Amino acid sequence: MKLEIVTSAGLAHKSYFLVDNHEALVIDPRRDCEIYTEIAQKYCAKINYIMETHRNEDYVIGSLELQNLTDAEIVHSKETPFKYGEHRIGDGDTFALGRLRVEAVETPGHTNDSICYVVYDSALSKEPLMVFTGDTLFAGDVGRTDLPGLDIWQVQTEKLYRSLHEKLLPLGDHVIVYPGHGAGTICGSKLSDRSITTLGYERKTNPIFQLDKDAFVKYMMGLKLYRPPYFRKMEVYNLNGPPLLKDAPITKKLSVQEFEKTARSPDAIILDTRLPGAFAASHIPGSANIGLDDLAFFPGWVVTHDQQILLVLDHLSEFKTAKTHLQRLGFDNIKGYLCPNIAAWRNKGKPTNHLFPLTPTSLKEKLDRKELALLDVREHNEWDKGHITDAKHIYVGHLAAEAIDLPSDKPLAVICGSGRRASLAASLLRRIGYEDVYNVLGGMNAWKALGYPTVN
Amino acid sequence: MKLEIVTSAGLAHKSYFLVDNHEALVIDPRRDCEIYTEIAQKYCAKINYIMETHRNEDYVIGSLELQNLTDAEIVHSKETPFKYGEHRIGDGDTFALGRLRVEAVETPGHTNDSICYVVYDSALSKEPLMVFTGDTLFAGDVGRTDLPGLDIWQVQTEKLYRSLHEKLLPLGDHVIVYPGHGAGTICGSKLSDRSITTLGYERKTNPIFQLDKDAFVKYMMGLKLYRPPYFRKMEVYNLNGPPLLKDAPITKKLSVQEFEKTARSPDAIILDTRLPGAFAASHIPGSANIGLDDLAFFPGWVVTHDQQILLVLDHLSEFKTAKTHLQRLGFDNIKGYLCPNIAAWRNKGKPTNHLFPLTPTSLKEKLDRKELALLDVREHNEWDKGHITDAKHIYVGHLAAEAIDLPSDKPLAVICGSGRRASLAASLLRRIGYEDVYNVLGGMNAWKALGYPTVN
Amino acid sequence: MKLEIVTSAGLAHKSYFLVDNHEALVIDPRRDCEIYTEIAQKYCAKINYIMETHRNEDYVIGSLELQNLTDAEIVHSKETPFKYGEHRIGDGDTFALGRLRVEAVETPGHTNDSICYVVYDSALSKEPLMVFTGDTLFAGDVGRTDLPGLDIWQVQTEKLYRSLHEKLLPLGDHVIVYPGHGAGTICGSKLSDRSITTLGYERKTNPIFQLDKDAFVKYMMGLKLYRPPYFRKMEVYNLNGPPLLKDAPITKKLSVQEFEKTARSPDAIILDTRLPGAFAASHIPGSANIGLDDLAFFPGWVVTHDQQILLVLDHLSEFKTAKTHLQRLGFDNIKGYLCPNIAAWRNKGKPTNHLFPLTPTSLKEKLDRKELALLDVREHNEWDKGHITDAKHIYVGHLAAEAIDLPSDKPLAVICGSGRRASLAASLLRRIGYEDVYNVLGGMNAWKALGYPTVN
Amino acid sequence: MKLEIVTSAGLAHKSYFLVDNHEALVIDPRRDCEIYTEIAQKYCAKINYIMETHRNEDYVIGSLELQNLTDAEIVHSKETPFKYGEHRIGDGDTFALGRLRVEAVETPGHTNDSICYVVYDSALSKEPLMVFTGDTLFAGDVGRTDLPGLDIWQVQTEKLYRSLHEKLLPLGDHVIVYPGHGAGTICGSKLSDRSITTLGYERKTNPIFQLDKDAFVKYMMGLKLYRPPYFRKMEVYNLNGPPLLKDAPITKKLSVQEFEKTARSPDAIILDTRLPGAFAASHIPGSANIGLDDLAFFPGWVVTHDQQILLVLDHLSEFKTAKTHLQRLGFDNIKGYLCPNIAAWRNKGKPTNHLFPLTPTSLKEKLDRKELALLDVREHNEWDKGHITDAKHIYVGHLAAEAIDLPSDKPLAVICGSGRRASLAASLLRRIGYEDVYNVLGGMNAWKALGYPTVN
Repeated sequence: MKLEIVTSAGLAHKSYFLVDNHEALVIDPRRDCEIYTEIAQKYCAKINYIMETHRNEDYVIGSLELQNLTDAEIVHSKETPFKYGEHRIGDGDTFALGRLRVEAVETPGHTNDSICYVVYDSALSKEPLMVFTGDTLFAGDVGRTDLPGLDIWQVQTEKLYRSLHEKLLPLGDHVIVYPGHGAGTICGSKLSDRSITTLGYERKTNPIFQLDKDAFVKYMMGLKLYRPPYFRKMEVYNLNGPPLLKDAPITKKLSVQEFEKTARSPDAIILDTRLPGAFAASHIPGSANIGLDDLAFFPGWVVTHDQQILLVLDHLSEFKTAKTHLQRLGFDNIKGYLCPNIAAWRNKGKPTNHLFPLTPTSLKEKLDRKELALLDVREHNEWDKGHITDAKHIYVGHLAAEAIDLPSDKPLAVICGSGRRASLAASLLRRIGYEDVYNVLGGMNAWKALGYPTVN
Repeated sequence: MKLEIVTSAGLAHKSYFLVDNHEALVIDPRRDCEIYTEIAQKYCAKINYIMETHRNEDYVIGSLELQNLTDAEIVHSKETPFKYGEHRIGDGDTFALGRLRVEAVETPGHTNDSICYVVYDSALSKEPLMVFTGDTLFAGDVGRTDLPGLDIWQVQTEKLYRSLHEKLLPLGDHVIVYPGHGAGTICGSKLSDRSITTLGYERKTNPIFQLDKDAFVKYMMGLKLYRPPYFRKMEVYNLNGPPLLKDAPITKKLSVQEFEKTARSPDAIILDTRLPGAFAASHIPGSANIGLDDLAFFPGWVVTHDQQILLVLDHLSEFKTAKTHLQRLGFDNIKGYLCPNIAAWRNKGKPTNHLFPLTPTSLKEKLDRKELALLDVREHNEWDKGHITDAKHIYVGHLAAEAIDLPSDKPLAVICGSGRRASLAASLLRRIGYEDVYNVLGGMNAWKALGYPTVN
Repeated sequence: MKLEIVTSAGLAHKSYFLVDNHEALVIDPRRDCEIYTEIAQKYCAKINYIMETHRNEDYVIGSLELQNLTDAEIVHSKETPFKYGEHRIGDGDTFALGRLRVEAVETPGHTNDSICYVVYDSALSKEPLMVFTGDTLFAGDVGRTDLPGLDIWQVQTEKLYRSLHEKLLPLGDHVIVYPGHGAGTICGSKLSDRSITTLGYERKTNPIFQLDKDAFVKYMMGLKLYRPPYFRKMEVYNLNGPPLLKDAPITKKLSVQEFEKTARSPDAIILDTRLPGAFAASHIPGSANIGLDDLAFFPGWVVTHDQQILLVLDHLSEFKTAKTHLQRLGFDNIKGYLCPNIAAWRNKGKPTNHLFPLTPTSLKEKLDRKELALLDVREHNEWDKGHITDAKHIYVGHLAAEAIDLPSDKPLAVICGSGRRASLAASLLRRIGYEDVYNVLGGMNAWKALGYPTVN
Repeated sequence: MKLEIVTSAGLAHKSYFLVDNHEALVIDPRRDCEIYTEIAQKYCAKINYIMETHRNEDYVIGSLELQNLTDAEIVHSKETPFKYGEHRIGDGDTFALGRLRVEAVETPGHTNDSICYVVYDSALSKEPLMVFTGDTLFAGDVGRTDLPGLDIWQVQTEKLYRSLHEKLLPLGDHVIVYPGHGAGTICGSKLSDRSITTLGYERKTNPIFQLDKDAFVKYMMGLKLYRPPYFRKMEVYNLNGPPLLKDAPITKKLSVQEFEKTARSPDAIILDTRLPGAFAASHIPGSANIGLDDLAFFPGWVVTHDQQILLVLDHLSEFKTAKTHLQRLGFDNIKGYLCPNIAAWRNKGKPTNHLFPLTPTSLKEKLDRKELALLDVREHNEWDKGHITDAKHIYVGHLAAEAIDLPSDKPLAVICGSGRRASLAASLLRRIGYEDVYNVLGGMNAWKALGYPTVN
């Protein structure tokens, strides 16, 4: 028996390849799924099953994509009317894999079709060895329960409580837990950055397991959670089966002239994937700044699936990563990228904008002199741990909707943790007309490191 | 907290890179240790400690090698008078690593300097999270206890029993176990091919934990274990500190003429790393056949550290792998390799030998007609599970010492599981004068698959 | 101006990427053509033109494939009614590329649609800098003239003479020559292994240029040339436009059981790509042995385009190379490959055959004792330079058609240069019923190195 | 015969690997020379000779480094008292290489020890095939003649004239020329970006060959050439033999704290290799901005060999390239690099500076309003082709020496072609006390593209 963990950075999505005796299954595959066939080749294994822990809402599921490369059968819950797949399962359904037995346990809560897969080494013992918990249980956290609907939030939370206490914990302290996400996912709130845990370690150390049912419900329903708009598209895709990548449009590299022409389309959106400093110094007017790594998530807040994406990259070698990140979120419509880079644009005398970068020290001086308004675009839980007096708080993802209330009589400084989200926010503010925008490089990290005052 | 597992195939050696908050430690590094600095770079971490679970006997420890690339301090037991290293530790000594606390637990048995390292996430709980068990506890097995000396075998076995039951199990069922080896190591006998387990899962399912002390001692002392001669050199190296790889001789690629000349030295040994079929068809007289993957272990049985190694490879691209395998066993004296391959040798009209390959069906016919003697070179535990009547059993590693008793009035067929060890054995037999040697391709695997009879 | 040369080993096909000022063209692209877009990205260039020197007959042209990834226009001769492409050109047609000017020169002979492309750096001079000569002129050789038809061989040869002397040489001694093939191609007979030459160096040193017209015709029409059957398919493909690779079937890795089942199909052919020694020792009955490198060419002799190809590889990592080689010859119907290798087949007790490998010394002894018949499967020009008395000569590619005349009263030894083609020949002989077949490893190279006698 | 060209970007240095019949030579190897042994392995060739065309002055020669990996003999001119090497040669000395003959031709001019190597295919003809011309003849240019000393500039120039006309051209129009540099080198002034040429094409199109001796001398001595200070060190190294890379210090990755501490050393210099925009937005005070690609050359102007180099990189993956570039110039003393990047520095609240980026349009407005002084740091030949009125011209390499005369009453804008050299210049100006410095992103390229006025 071998297990390989495939982690998609940014989304913190974890998928799993389990193999025994040349028979394999994949749990929650991602869309760019050659990696699973490569692993299969390493073990000379046939992928028999593709198993989904639930209808995932934060990325395009790779089940159909992987099935197209193999002869695997797709397995998911009978609770959801999936338009594809071979097995609709529930409590107690089992699958053989070499000497292993994999048993489904229904664990509604995060969604109603949530299923955990318990693995037994039947050659050895009737004791379970490990469990794939999807978005039901994470290391140090549990899955959020608001997504099925705020009207049934309490119902779902109570379901989750029962799933955790009546379905998972009874499997035993010794059982190894493989969750669907690591720290950084939006599907939970306080995940540990550990990549591994056991039911016993969670039972003993996860604060959520120290709560009784009422306290659990109160805690869960008190969380301030974000729901980016692309989730809707993911739900549709993962219910009906997403389009295959081989049918995605071919992305062209574009000369300055071609890029400029394409960008004029009302459907076009320019994503500049450079770091915030480089973006601040000089960028194409109207572009949104989402750093290469952040491309794994933030397009889900600011891009719509019918837009034509144009990329500005630091190095062309980054295109592959950019495309992968976008396609995992279902953004296949990547029209082209500027070749080779922004310097070509500048060398042709094409117009550029810049943002004013600000050090925390300058920020403090300007705030002390009331020369600036300050916008903090971090998440609630970061804001709650300490922010600057008089800062206004709008989460970067909500900026488009809520920016209307911002003061316009003064220049506006934007701050986040280190400057990446602030740069995205600043670029979005420029798109809607705020001209005089500063990005605080170093952000609250630096502010706190310097010992400047914060309030809670 | 992140953990990366670095596995060296062949030796089934597992080393570990543990990092928290940019501080890292490495457990039992291997000699080719750039991989740890690469991982460190990925996490932007400083390697503070290099921790040895014991004076390893089956490979060259990479502690000094890694220290030379970093500023890490080396940690090992106070029980052994190591000639290098900064920390000599025992029960209860602890090291901080970011938010983690790592505590030493002495677990004598496999060796007297065996130490397990228990990891606590002190930010979270006083419960231990995981334990690095070295060669004390494996998934499905425990470390052998005969190496400190057959005269004190029982003493060591009883020590191990206490270490397991009084030191490890009390940590709790939920604790994740990271052992020093996976299946395939010679440091245990019946390891699972699982790469992960917990104390609870071992307690419940590992047959060894179902034994009381007396039964345990009886079981352990009844094991038939192998001890290859290179262990002695490893013990010396790992006590005193092995030579650094940058001082290893440069291996030259050799033309047919140069190869032939070098091979004439009495200290030279030709290792042909091709698969058994290719070797059977045509090889340089006097060469020993150790397939590329087997180079990770079998040179420890048939090469001495003062010999000059000459390689015959299928493809030159395999040289790097061959060198790495050999250097892990301390065989640095790799004189050269034939460039580009055996075809060049043949094209010059240089002499070659061949072995007779045999299918299991032909073997059966010839055995039935008494035309052949049969030698089975597998390990005891394979032999005990079924062998062919009238076969003689000598483990491949013992062949040099024991081959003297083989019948020489008939051709000799050699069999193993699939043909690789048999090919090594056959090549060794040719070196000591047996001319008429067959290798059974497919080996006992095929014999059994065809339903031919075996005895136990 | 930069030029990149893309060589396809085996076919010795040379294609060219020429770029100036971010504008590029590709001459005679191969089918696996991502390499050209990668080069284009390196230079941040737009591929404007794909230029064919003629309707190539020895590989699938990649023009349509490359056009599908770019917006390039395809250029070829007006002499052939191509079913695709944008430009049908003739003498004097020119194309601008940055500061360069590229001019077509019709050079009929090898084919009637042969065109050379002469490059001028118009910013610098009216002197030509270089010429892409396709299959008209090679380093040390010229293109064969028999392919348009043996009935018009003389006509074509005279055309070629005029093209060389009246069209190419007048460009000037200083002009650099970039031909369509290097040594090893079947499109010429005596190419130098130089990758570069000039018109002047050819004029002075190429023996063909020392001949007057009559001597030239006599020489050319005296060549013994091979024409493999797959040429017909290439001609159809390259006239009409070949299928795109994205529509090629997905190749599956096959377990022993699946492989055995698939191989039973009457359309199936097993290609074993291992080296001749490994093949000799043990192979699946009925398989043809074409070494990985030879896969670039020999399938064109022994496989038909409607067969289902099954592969046996030394290492699975070789599959990509195998597929590329096969697809360049238009063999897209690659059903699967045995996973992981022949050892799995043997371990299941499945039937295998072996060939008898023979050293040249044994061959000589057996020939002296008249125990063997000998078949030499090399090319005419190798045979003519020296062969063994009493050997029968059939070129390996013609074996299927001519093998009928072989002696069957004695075992049959097959010889080539080193043993690779002989192994293919031996495997083909086994397929048509010759049981007692030897392969001489080392071949004529070894025979001659040992000083054994040959006749001319 | 095969030739492989190894080009080092930045220096535009071309080295050559020539092989025939498994015998090879390397012309002017670079210091990071594993590439030659890799090529040798590809051809299964033994490198017999390492040949130097002259004592190179612009990079560390790799002869000793390569000799240490092989058994090759080093060949160079008898005119210079080299402290290493096996062959001191002159006119007519020849070396055999397979079927090839390589003959030395003394071509003094660029240096007095300049030697061209002419290659004959002796199996084929007495005509020369190609010539390695070192820094004597380039495509479109010839080597500069001022380096041996301005007092003997004319003497050297006349020598070069004779070498070109009496030694090289007589070899014949058809001879292929392989020079020691491509466009971008400082060893010539007007090289073509062609990578290949012939003696005939140069004779017909190279403007220098249209000049008679007097005009040639006048032209050559009228060139405005740069001589960076690191040349002196290269001359010493390449005369005596440079240190081996395996003895170079190990570079450490440094945390923010370690970096800050190390940077305090008076010998330390921080090289920030990011692009000018990122540098402008935020950088560590005192750092010099040399982009990753420019690291191949500009450290030779601004770093001394006794300084301790500290690197700030965009991505850690760039370290290897940075190190290679620096070591080619002999800068081995690379103390460390900031891990992972500048964001870590900012997040700790450490001080940063920024430069003001300027668009050409803003520059024009500010110049029109006399708000800025302007410094143009391009080379003479760029300046001469058009610059902005009232700009002051100091070449970036001379800035340290000449910056004393700059106006300090106004902010200072720095301009180059696109902004990279201007960023280096601006960073140097900051180091010597100019606070109010602008970098014009897009530079003169953009200025001209926008049609703004220039003067000559």
